[in-house]
Amino acid sequence: MKAIILFGHGARDIRWREPFDTLVSLWRAQHAAIPVELAFLEMMQPSLEEAVRSLSLQGATQITVVPVFFGQGGHLRNDFPVLLKECQTKFPQLTLSATSAVGEDQAVLQAIVDFGCRAIPP
Amino acid sequence: MKAIILFGHGARDIRWREPFDTLVSLWRAQHAAIPVELAFLEMMQPSLEEAVRSLSLQGATQITVVPVFFGQGGHLRNDFPVLLKECQTKFPQLTLSATSAVGEDQAVLQAIVDFGCRAIPP
Repeated sequence: MKAIILFGHGARDIRWREPFDTLVSLWRAQHAAIPVELAFLEMMQPSLEEAVRSLSLQGATQITVVPVFFGQGGHLRNDFPVLLKECQTKFPQLTLSATSAVGEDQAVLQAIVDFGCRAIPP
Repeated sequence: MKAIILFGHGARDIRWREPFDTLVSLWRAQHAAIPVELAFLEMMQPSLEEAVRSLSLQGATQITVVPVFFGQGGHLRNDFPVLLKECQTKFPQLTLSATSAVGEDQAVLQAIVDFGCRAIPP
């Protein structure tokens, strides 16, 4: 069974995660057959490993991790591959893969441009 | 004259800013009449104040600042309003305003969901 993890940075302020919770709600409403979990690099729970374990217990065998980051800096180039490899080692029965950061996607960037355009006063 | 600032967090790795540079390119291609500048909270240049000064020198009088952040945590709730107020004090002839974070926008979140959906292997 396929599943997806939306992987964010995390922050001290709990309200920071609101858009991530909205992402999960949208995903569940639109793609109910594909379980989704959030995971965070730091300061928020669950960790990537906890999210992988949760999805594995739900029956997932093939998990795609989507980094919900704008840029690909040290976190995604250095920390994230190590975390992903550790998870793959701990869950050898699963197939884990990762996408590029969502900020590399032209449609995401276009949506940001469109948001900015709508925000300019008339 | 109206103008826009796309305000990001910043990171140590220079490659982190690539999506921000793409945002500027998209904006300039689509909204050439409205000058755009990037600005960063930390670790990257220019600062918000430098971007405001640059746009003012280009003739801007009404600047909309768009926080290119997912969540609204301490940076946007505490640091950003202080920075914006300082800029307004330093440039009293300008009208500065700010939007919510782009991660609060449903179309941006939908684009992220769609990106994740396309990334699921067949």
